[in-house]
This record gives sequence, C-alpha cells and structure tokens, in this order.
Amino acid sequence: MSDKRTGLIIVVSAPSGGGKSSLCQRLLNWSPNLVYSVSCTTRAPRGGEQNGRDYTFLTREEFERRIAAREFLEHAQYNGNYYGTPRPFIEEQLRAGRDVLLDVEIQGAGQLMKGIRGGQFAYPEALVTIFLMPPSLELLETRLRRRATDSDETIRKRLAIAEKEMAYWTEYDYVIVSGHLDDDFAQGKAIIIAEKCRSARQPKDQPWRQNELSF
Amino acid sequence: MSDKRTGLIIVVSAPSGGGKSSLCQRLLNWSPNLVYSVSCTTRAPRGGEQNGRDYTFLTREEFERRIAAREFLEHAQYNGNYYGTPRPFIEEQLRAGRDVLLDVEIQGAGQLMKGIRGGQFAYPEALVTIFLMPPSLELLETRLRRRATDSDETIRKRLAIAEKEMAYWTEYDYVIVSGHLDDDFAQGKAIIIAEKCRSARQPKDQPWRQNELSF
Repeated sequence: MSDKRTGLIIVVSAPSGGGKSSLCQRLLNWSPNLVYSVSCTTRAPRGGEQNGRDYTFLTREEFERRIAAREFLEHAQYNGNYYGTPRPFIEEQLRAGRDVLLDVEIQGAGQLMKGIRGGQFAYPEALVTIFLMPPSLELLETRLRRRATDSDETIRKRLAIAEKEMAYWTEYDYVIVSGHLDDDFAQGKAIIIAEKCRSARQPKDQPWRQNELSF
Repeated sequence: MSDKRTGLIIVVSAPSGGGKSSLCQRLLNWSPNLVYSVSCTTRAPRGGEQNGRDYTFLTREEFERRIAAREFLEHAQYNGNYYGTPRPFIEEQLRAGRDVLLDVEIQGAGQLMKGIRGGQFAYPEALVTIFLMPPSLELLETRLRRRATDSDETIRKRLAIAEKEMAYWTEYDYVIVSGHLDDDFAQGKAIIIAEKCRSARQPKDQPWRQNELSF
C-alpha cells in the first residue's frame, strides 16, 4: 500500500510472431496514460521500422557501453542480437503516475522480473506481467510465413525457439490466449483496469476522495 | 493451478445505499456465465422485491433452523434482521464452471472470507472480493434520501453504520470508487475478465489449446 498512486510497469511477452506488437499498439491507442518503453537493439531495422519509435537501433559497441554503465533494466541476446530496456525513462514515467508498457522478449522478461523482484528497482509493486500465448504452433507458423520477411531456415529456428518459450507462461501474472485482436485487446485492457482497482494499489487514506483513476 | 477451470465466487459489498444492486444487475446482464446467488433474509420485502429473485424471504424460525443445519456459507444480523448465503447452490454452480455473484453485506462478507480462507469451502481459490466505495458520505446520504423508503432516524442509523463500514475496504481484493454506473460496470467487468486471465487459474496443460474462456 502506497501513499501516492504510482504507475504500472506492464510487461507483455509472447513467442516470436505471437502478435504482441499489434496488442501493444491497441493498448497505447486506448489509454492516454500509457506510454511505450522503446527498447534498444542491435538488430537491423525491418521495413517501415523507425529509429526511436519502434526501437532505438544501436551498434554492438554502443550497446555494450550502456550495459557496462548499468543503463538497462534488463538486456538479453536473442538470435545473435542484443535487446535491452532503458531504465531512466521508466523510472521518470512511474514517478509522474504514468503507466509504462514494455514489449519484451521472454528471455529479457525473465531477467527483468528477477531483477525487479530481487530489489533492483524502486517500484517492485508496479510490475504486472502478461504472456500472450499463441493458440497453437501451427497458427504461429502460418503467421510467421505470412509476414514473409524471413527465410525458411529462420522460420524453422524461430518456431523451435517459440515452442520452448511457450513453457514460460507460468512465470507471468496473466495469460491471454491469442485469438482475434479485439479479444486480446479486451483482455489486456481489462487487466490494466483491474490492476488499478486492486486494494493494495490504493492510497492509504480515503481512496474514495481520490477518484482520479486514469486509463 | 487446477486441472480444470472452475468458476469464480465474486463477492460485491458496499456500505448500505452504495449502489451495489445496480452494479450487480449490470454484471448479470452482461455475462451469461454469471449467476446470482439469491440471499436469504428475515427482513420484510421492499416495494417491487420478489421472493426467490431479490431475496428468499424467511421467517426467523426457518432462518435459525437453516443456521443449525449449516446450510449457510455465511450469515449475519444487520439492522435487526438475518441475512445469509445458501451454500449448496454456489457449490453446484462452481462445479459446472459457472461464476457466482454474491451481493453481501460487509459483516457477512467478512465472515464469508474468513470461512473460505480458513478451509471451510471446497474452492478457496475461487474467491474474488470487490468493495464498492461511495465517493463521499454526503453523496451516500443523498442517495439514501432519494430512495425515500426509510425514516429520518433509519437514514441516520444507516449513515453511522456506513461510515464504520467504509473502513473495511482494505479486506477486499479490489476497490471500485463508485461514480457513474457505466464506470462502475466497466471496472467490475474488467475485474472478472482479468481474474479469468490469471496464470494461477489456467489449466496446467497447454492452456493455449483450451481457449474456452466464457464471460
């Protein structure tokens, strides 16, 4: 229980190709109080991706410098590339009462949860984790092939990784079984609204006089 | 974590006059999977109330017989009348995978939580508790006076009780600060949807193949 209402860190993970970008976009369009934490990566931009909007694209040298400077809340290597979550931005937003949405790979999310629960972060109670589960491996394959940006071998590799990753759902607070985007969104939205209603998140004194819930 | 998805027991409490009947009605109209647990009471029916729909109206003698026969999940006296929650109906509904909505006075809810958490019920993990908080005592008084079914003295008594009851919000999982009914409903609905997404409520094996969430 806190004296002041601080924001939530909402972590959304899914096996590669699981549709989490679309879900995150819908959530961001819905809530003016929700801001996106732009990850850093060393992988090459895909068609249409903008630096600073989709990712902050860094060289390996610059990424490793920031690791050493402890500027990441978590970082991980995936498919030979670095991915990381910059810490200062998130702390600023939470202090201002805003919620921060993190679109994080499963490996990185594990590191993030361990770090936050282990006391490496000022707002451990802010953390809310959501696993977006593909309805089946077959459907995941169809989606990856439809995207058509990757070679057959890359797709096979991604599927093998995805199958292993799907086992990690038990580590998350919530599971959304991915179906129609509207349904995924309804569930994601519900989780955020419900988390804000939790007793443990209300200001200690007279919550009924502080009805300034914002979504 | 369970092998099979069972229903939820959703307890909604509010200080007297707090508007919980309207919220419960909206939730019941929304979800075909949600059934209302009709409480028993010894108080006299108010205008428009139907036996078996709003309450099961019992004599004191019959109510006390059922207490002795352990047919209530909880029971309490309030304003000189008995109120109680019949147990067998709820157990049947949960086994069938349906969710049960309970509109329970705060005193009764406390007894119910204590009993369920203390192991007196087959499905302790089913319990989800929501406190509907009036935005202010002044507004609560306005509402009670608008209803115009009670005398001045009764209203004063109810307000004094309500003020004490408002302190019990910390015992509940969730708090909804009562505003416009549409907003109260949106939050109540979100809590039910989110609770169904909780990892701990998913079937152990392959939740992604059992996408039969029903609201």
